[in-house]
Amino acid sequence: MDKLRQHIEEVISVTDEEFEHIKTFFTPRRVKKHQYLIQDGDQANFEYLIMAGIFRMFYLDDDGKEHIVQFAGENWWMSDYQAYFYQKQARLNIVCMEDGEVLCMKLQGRETLSADLHKMEHFFRVKLTRGYVAQQQRIISLLSSTPQQRYEEFNHLYPHMTQKIPKKYIAEYLGVSRETLSRLYSTHK
Amino acid sequence: MDKLRQHIEEVISVTDEEFEHIKTFFTPRRVKKHQYLIQDGDQANFEYLIMAGIFRMFYLDDDGKEHIVQFAGENWWMSDYQAYFYQKQARLNIVCMEDGEVLCMKLQGRETLSADLHKMEHFFRVKLTRGYVAQQQRIISLLSSTPQQRYEEFNHLYPHMTQKIPKKYIAEYLGVSRETLSRLYSTHK
Repeated sequence: MDKLRQHIEEVISVTDEEFEHIKTFFTPRRVKKHQYLIQDGDQANFEYLIMAGIFRMFYLDDDGKEHIVQFAGENWWMSDYQAYFYQKQARLNIVCMEDGEVLCMKLQGRETLSADLHKMEHFFRVKLTRGYVAQQQRIISLLSSTPQQRYEEFNHLYPHMTQKIPKKYIAEYLGVSRETLSRLYSTHK
Repeated sequence: MDKLRQHIEEVISVTDEEFEHIKTFFTPRRVKKHQYLIQDGDQANFEYLIMAGIFRMFYLDDDGKEHIVQFAGENWWMSDYQAYFYQKQARLNIVCMEDGEVLCMKLQGRETLSADLHKMEHFFRVKLTRGYVAQQQRIISLLSSTPQQRYEEFNHLYPHMTQKIPKKYIAEYLGVSRETLSRLYSTHK
């Protein structure tokens, strides 16, 4: 749980006693490659803080085509947030691409912790703010950018993951062919 | 400022004294049709809570083509959040489409208010949560939906604005031609 404390203390300071309380809201879980954290149609009972591993979140359309919403690695939070916050059926899937470990948090725990400790409410607000900004950028990028710009944004957003994500999925995320991706790689160096 | 109190009290309860304090962080501003709240390249010094009127947020690409990120009406919050939170140059534009009034809030005010009152930190977290969910849905929609699905989501997201936004802009937002939009309208009724 040391990594959790470090992650939280990037935003706020907590005492030992506070951290003892905070950590009771997180349940660790090991995840193997190809294993799902969330599948569409199921409940999304947890939000996940990734301690290790790489994950892919995608939407599966009626024709069975996969559309990648985001990737996530160490210190990222992820869930199907509509399903999680409003207790609806999930529309998204989250699958593990590299063995890892996550901390699972229930919505009730998130809310209780935020009510108990003003500083934790602040922590979650700061995290949400950053996520909100990243999503606004992703929307702009989807609406308008050239493959070149999207590729640069991808590198900016996922600096530590670029080498670890199979090219097939990067191409899918960017909405380009494998050939175009190879061209982007070679012009980027 | 009664409308502001009502808006806040949809999420939290505040005392008269607390509200006296809260309202000092908001500055009202009247906005005329065609007037800009934010222009790309400028600073984004404020977040705006819309009291009246309809606004359009868009990204202008290098070829001068407009890409609509979102619309907003009464009780919506909007800003170029990357520029606002990180004090960078704005990439987005916000323009008024129907005369209105907004309440302007500086980032420093937002942070001070959140630190002063735990319940206001909670209020902002709840608002961000809803915005985050809406954006995740918009990303799924941009990645994968058919025009028909996008049109239904648009109606769901903007139930009170559908009649007021010129069809030209709705077509642009959905990424369809005017002819396709007319067809969507007729099949929807």
